Amino acid sequence: MHPDLPSLNAFLKLLQQVPYLASKNLYRVTAHFLNMEPQRAEKFCQALLEAKQRITKCAICFSWQEVNYPCSWCSASARDQTVICVVESWQELIAIEKTGGYTGVYHVLGGAICPLEGIGPEQLTIEPLIERLNNETTELILATNQTPEGQATAAYIVSKIPNKQLLVSCLARGVPVGSSLEYIDRLTVYKALSERRPF
Amino acid sequence: MHPDLPSLNAFLKLLQQVPYLASKNLYRVTAHFLNMEPQRAEKFCQALLEAKQRITKCAICFSWQEVNYPCSWCSASARDQTVICVVESWQELIAIEKTGGYTGVYHVLGGAICPLEGIGPEQLTIEPLIERLNNETTELILATNQTPEGQATAAYIVSKIPNKQLLVSCLARGVPVGSSLEYIDRLTVYKALSERRPF
Repeated sequence: MHPDLPSLNAFLKLLQQVPYLASKNLYRVTAHFLNMEPQRAEKFCQALLEAKQRITKCAICFSWQEVNYPCSWCSASARDQTVICVVESWQELIAIEKTGGYTGVYHVLGGAICPLEGIGPEQLTIEPLIERLNNETTELILATNQTPEGQATAAYIVSKIPNKQLLVSCLARGVPVGSSLEYIDRLTVYKALSERRPF
Repeated sequence: MHPDLPSLNAFLKLLQQVPYLASKNLYRVTAHFLNMEPQRAEKFCQALLEAKQRITKCAICFSWQEVNYPCSWCSASARDQTVICVVESWQELIAIEKTGGYTGVYHVLGGAICPLEGIGPEQLTIEPLIERLNNETTELILATNQTPEGQATAAYIVSKIPNKQLLVSCLARGVPVGSSLEYIDRLTVYKALSERRPF
């Protein structure tokens, strides 16, 4: 790409694999790294490698957990351990956590079933989720994304739940807060209408 | 932010300073780094530190240049060394280069004059630019951004040019290709109208 800048090319190639750093942003981010003080770049690398070394996944909920630290959710006595919210990844967990409206625990699947990308149920943490369900579990909230893959994953999980009495719920579908019907896609309006609720 | 994940917090704090990685993107990018193979993270850090170590700025045009390599522009015999295009940063240089329509050389200012941010002419490479102008220079293209800062910088440069006979040009202002007047801001339409050209 830049014949006279081989080490820049090497870095660009790796940076390109980072999500959101396509085309235009890529050069701005590269300039950020090239312009920073060398010590700050070293600090950045240290922090990255230390995080990689120290952060693992909780053996119960599969969200991030630091070595020698308890899991922020599974070990929190203030959280309702009987309600489990199933999410595809950590980012969705954070999105739910940010609402401040959820006090139960989580289960991070690690993705969604997608045969085209070679992701089957075995690649996800569905088996540990099923094993995790016990008599104390009162509700399982399926908060996978509203995509074909996310919904197929939710359906698959439902089919695997042994206790058919367990309350299984999913997120409400409908018109996003602050938006007007005019600008929303047809299917969302249809779902909002067919799944309408008493005022 | 995440009391049980101190090394994640440390990494997040540094990642937050990278442009384009605000709020939502931040978590996705963090997940990308946490999910990658440890060897790949090390490779990323190596590439970054090597780029930091090997890439300096060309002493003439101040664009990136690798140690032991010639400057891609100043040392290119195929490029017209008598035409100098002044840009604020490397990203703008790349944007012009991508058009494939420019064969002269560049001068990277390293920003634009912005008194509010403490950036005066001395912080930029304006003095080396003026020194660079000689009798062989045929044209100076001022391609600073169409912002108050960019335009003030261009005006400042013009005031410092010793050779008043030198052809100094700036980029055309007007309606972007592919856009319709209806959606363009008033000032751009005004400029496009007042700076209209023969068809």
